[in-house]
Amino acid sequence: MQLGIIGLGRMGGNIARRLMRNGHEVVAHDRDATIAQSLVADGATHVESLAQLVEQIDAPRAIWVMLPSGEITEQTIAALADIMEAGDTIIDGGNTFYKDDVRRAASLKEKGLHYVDVGTSGGVWGLERGYCMMIGAEKEVFDHLEPLFDTLAPGYGDLERTKGRNAPDERAERGYIHAGPVGAGHYVKMVHNGIEYGLMQAYAEGFELMQSKGSADLPEDQRFDLNMADIAEVWRRGSVVSSWLLDLTAQALAGDERLDHYSGAVSDSGEGRWTVDAAVEQGVAVPVLANALFSRFSSRKENTYANRLLSAMRFGFGGHVEPPRQD
Amino acid sequence: MQLGIIGLGRMGGNIARRLMRNGHEVVAHDRDATIAQSLVADGATHVESLAQLVEQIDAPRAIWVMLPSGEITEQTIAALADIMEAGDTIIDGGNTFYKDDVRRAASLKEKGLHYVDVGTSGGVWGLERGYCMMIGAEKEVFDHLEPLFDTLAPGYGDLERTKGRNAPDERAERGYIHAGPVGAGHYVKMVHNGIEYGLMQAYAEGFELMQSKGSADLPEDQRFDLNMADIAEVWRRGSVVSSWLLDLTAQALAGDERLDHYSGAVSDSGEGRWTVDAAVEQGVAVPVLANALFSRFSSRKENTYANRLLSAMRFGFGGHVEPPRQD
Amino acid sequence: MQLGIIGLGRMGGNIARRLMRNGHEVVAHDRDATIAQSLVADGATHVESLAQLVEQIDAPRAIWVMLPSGEITEQTIAALADIMEAGDTIIDGGNTFYKDDVRRAASLKEKGLHYVDVGTSGGVWGLERGYCMMIGAEKEVFDHLEPLFDTLAPGYGDLERTKGRNAPDERAERGYIHAGPVGAGHYVKMVHNGIEYGLMQAYAEGFELMQSKGSADLPEDQRFDLNMADIAEVWRRGSVVSSWLLDLTAQALAGDERLDHYSGAVSDSGEGRWTVDAAVEQGVAVPVLANALFSRFSSRKENTYANRLLSAMRFGFGGHVEPPRQD
Amino acid sequence: MQLGIIGLGRMGGNIARRLMRNGHEVVAHDRDATIAQSLVADGATHVESLAQLVEQIDAPRAIWVMLPSGEITEQTIAALADIMEAGDTIIDGGNTFYKDDVRRAASLKEKGLHYVDVGTSGGVWGLERGYCMMIGAEKEVFDHLEPLFDTLAPGYGDLERTKGRNAPDERAERGYIHAGPVGAGHYVKMVHNGIEYGLMQAYAEGFELMQSKGSADLPEDQRFDLNMADIAEVWRRGSVVSSWLLDLTAQALAGDERLDHYSGAVSDSGEGRWTVDAAVEQGVAVPVLANALFSRFSSRKENTYANRLLSAMRFGFGGHVEPPRQD
Repeated sequence: MQLGIIGLGRMGGNIARRLMRNGHEVVAHDRDATIAQSLVADGATHVESLAQLVEQIDAPRAIWVMLPSGEITEQTIAALADIMEAGDTIIDGGNTFYKDDVRRAASLKEKGLHYVDVGTSGGVWGLERGYCMMIGAEKEVFDHLEPLFDTLAPGYGDLERTKGRNAPDERAERGYIHAGPVGAGHYVKMVHNGIEYGLMQAYAEGFELMQSKGSADLPEDQRFDLNMADIAEVWRRGSVVSSWLLDLTAQALAGDERLDHYSGAVSDSGEGRWTVDAAVEQGVAVPVLANALFSRFSSRKENTYANRLLSAMRFGFGGHVEPPRQD
Repeated sequence: MQLGIIGLGRMGGNIARRLMRNGHEVVAHDRDATIAQSLVADGATHVESLAQLVEQIDAPRAIWVMLPSGEITEQTIAALADIMEAGDTIIDGGNTFYKDDVRRAASLKEKGLHYVDVGTSGGVWGLERGYCMMIGAEKEVFDHLEPLFDTLAPGYGDLERTKGRNAPDERAERGYIHAGPVGAGHYVKMVHNGIEYGLMQAYAEGFELMQSKGSADLPEDQRFDLNMADIAEVWRRGSVVSSWLLDLTAQALAGDERLDHYSGAVSDSGEGRWTVDAAVEQGVAVPVLANALFSRFSSRKENTYANRLLSAMRFGFGGHVEPPRQD
Repeated sequence: MQLGIIGLGRMGGNIARRLMRNGHEVVAHDRDATIAQSLVADGATHVESLAQLVEQIDAPRAIWVMLPSGEITEQTIAALADIMEAGDTIIDGGNTFYKDDVRRAASLKEKGLHYVDVGTSGGVWGLERGYCMMIGAEKEVFDHLEPLFDTLAPGYGDLERTKGRNAPDERAERGYIHAGPVGAGHYVKMVHNGIEYGLMQAYAEGFELMQSKGSADLPEDQRFDLNMADIAEVWRRGSVVSSWLLDLTAQALAGDERLDHYSGAVSDSGEGRWTVDAAVEQGVAVPVLANALFSRFSSRKENTYANRLLSAMRFGFGGHVEPPRQD
Repeated sequence: MQLGIIGLGRMGGNIARRLMRNGHEVVAHDRDATIAQSLVADGATHVESLAQLVEQIDAPRAIWVMLPSGEITEQTIAALADIMEAGDTIIDGGNTFYKDDVRRAASLKEKGLHYVDVGTSGGVWGLERGYCMMIGAEKEVFDHLEPLFDTLAPGYGDLERTKGRNAPDERAERGYIHAGPVGAGHYVKMVHNGIEYGLMQAYAEGFELMQSKGSADLPEDQRFDLNMADIAEVWRRGSVVSSWLLDLTAQALAGDERLDHYSGAVSDSGEGRWTVDAAVEQGVAVPVLANALFSRFSSRKENTYANRLLSAMRFGFGGHVEPPRQD
């Protein structure tokens, strides 16, 4: 079917490509026209404005917005709302806060427009592996767009099928779900990313523990000089901790066991934060998800006010002066 | 080659079977003779005592102890040490604390005996999938036993191979590594299990967050009634959080989305605890691994002294009386 | 000076009394007229409606709202705004979220009304000890109301004065501060309560550790049967951990070392949650404040979905069945 | 009474002084003779060796060892054991791990020597304020030494007495307790310090949150420029978070609100670590105490292996490159 796509970066461009490879028709727009060129070579129609985009697509239209979450997505959707027609659908495939989805859908509904939120996981690998999608939408709208989702999803693949699924929704086994009404898709994707932070931090702590077991700070007879790359590799096979993140870890360590060229100032995006906020709102204890987030905060700072205050208190009650920082 | 195995439970019995299926010869002992019978049917020689076990195996002997960690393993190894001969090897495949390995090896060395620690992951799935093994041993001893490890390990399987491994140890790709000297195997396995706790807790927190989003405690217009089984299933395909633990989660949820028949009083074994102790000893921050452990402690208790003291303080400063417990 | 007070519960009633004892004039209102009677006996004028309240006070009026945070406070302030006059001031002394203060102040400003947020600590002890107040307000409004704050505050007391205060604001030494513009008072009070949660949890964990050191779960030769009441008492004198919360702990333990009649289902109020949200918003790591909050969440639940999922995974990979819950 | 003291640093010297000011007789030894001189001026007898120390004191002797915990304390006690006589007592007032106390006492008992562990809080302030002491000892030995403890302790002071103490041990109200048998004193002191870490971290996180609320990273209309010194000061009066640590915080902030000359690389001593180990051993959840410790670990490092691995994974799945570190 026909789809408009706005935003042709890493994610949007590959989503367009995967659709076109499987027979869908893409009309694409990006503020940076040079980015759009390679898509045109792959078969897309490129348009220079939102107005042209709406003009080029047959009603009822579906336009997929794949932009950084926040202001730019908000503005683009508002602009589309002004020029699209009743019965058209705007899909937000980015990382929007789910309460913003709910608000937008209510506003668009007044104009007869539909809104769909698609939590999309797959990163730079999605073009080949397919995208895992969690979708919030009205039932009819979801049904109408399903051919697109089915194409973008990984499909059954060669994974062993889960036994005993009752009244299974086979879409889940092909890699996409209709999670619920508008907002539900991004809510599930938000938690997905919160979990991702926790998983990553668990591996990171464990590998640091093993790496530091060879440290010269330990007495010589208590050290082990362990091979991080081999450990990551061996755990990929038959161990309880095997995962795709471990595959990536093995890949990273294969060429560079010391990881020296990474700064270790780890960014976080909105979803990890919103997950903690949601847990606070719902009264759910999430010590692991929250501490994983806090570790990222700390990774980007040194010599914080909190730590200086600890030093000041230690001086106050015990006359302690801290030794200089380790580097 | 020939191997003695002591302890024919879930792990030991299947290790014996996987070895015999691939042409190795097993002499087996278990205090419970009925457990041994099925192994005999599969081709093992069964003996009724440690003395017979030593007698039945040709020198230099290798005997694999696969018993619950702690006293029973300690005593069995001590008993073996009394009757085995210089040049023989004792393998501890259980979940022993690595410092106990180091101590034992030193003691056995005085008698000319070798000691090998094998951290073994794979659980009830190892017979079919193979066991992931992290091995601590002297180089020569490891080399001598390698045919056993190679048989027990999963092998390359159909996993995509990691690109760019420099001077790779292909053993890691087949599912076993010589981690280092005695103790290193169980040290790596200990951290493996510590990571496992963190990964499990990350999923658990995330799924609770999603499950509770449908709770009647929330205002009706803020609820989503999400399908946990479908979410676990869809994340298996193309998402960043796909893993073997997620496969198991999907399997568990497929038949029983509410998980009502689980008590939620979650046990922990030594390794999760030792991991935190090791982190404290090495000065490594492990907020996620430690909080995962603490969550298990809390899961087994209610109305703790700590919480009662919080209530007492709240009453003290604000006259607050807690509402009754939610059930 | 003259002050209207709405809400004569534990806090509001005692604030009124402390003001009247020191020569201020109070016009009071509470929906529950019986509560108001004892205040009348102490010298207050009681009125039956907001309208009468406004009528009874001379312009420019100051009315202190001391109600549970949330809907009831919001509505009361809205109702006051309708009947008060330009130049009047509404004081919110409850536990309002600081962003709501900012929003309200902007709205009231359009009508020429002033708004002041007072974070008030002191609980049931404030009548005798005085109230510690953190105040957000325009400078002139703060100055105008200062006689009230000065009366309510504890004053210098017999505390040793802090050495070396540069250009000190002596108001801080008397127990109240002009923290900043509207919202700043409740922001500081919010963090105050977040810290309170952390302090309480630190004591609670430590006392549980000591109490459980006498547990029959430990080998007999590793137990200490420690006296919690004496420990709390001794720490009050000369130790680094002495505090008012410790005084309260000693008080609670003096009569009831086992704390058996507390349910241990610990409530939390908005401020602990907002503190974590603020930390997430500001990118500040607050592992202690957040984990203290999460411990309260967990204290109110048992057999959570998260824990049941952990049990399900353990069964999945290792065939583990949890032992029954400890009570 | 007469007491030998070994180790005349900040703690040992002031303990000697406080005893002498109140009529006790001190024979003192320090490897650094110059340190000893000022004590001699205050009335102590100084001896140059352990042998002389034993010689100068009348049997049954009591010798207080006040040295850094670890090797030097261990060796000194072993050396004393060789030259002291049956019926004599060795007091370890340092920060020894309580299991080492138990071990030592058993060993000394074979020679007829007594052993006492005194957990001592009070730091540089103890000379004036008195020391809070938690004592592990046999009952008779404790009784014999009690005049020393009574002198060193703060006494009732002007603290309000706790109401309702049943069958009170008034020693607790004077600042020392007989916590239990050998080891109990240091166990209680260990937990005391664990709690101290948690309390300090709670304040540190809260103050960082408030300080960063003025950060230029926030939109201008969301900033508050709060005065840390005034906030600490005001909380000292009537607030729930008032404490001695807060007094010290107010003192530190009075002269230097930015705390710029502290490195923020926060040391930790054994007791914080042992507290976490004890919690793990006893199966008690201590998220706050453990995270406070981990925050100190992190404060001393930057660009850890754990964080670099997070960056490597983020690059792996999303092509993300971290922005440069904030300073």
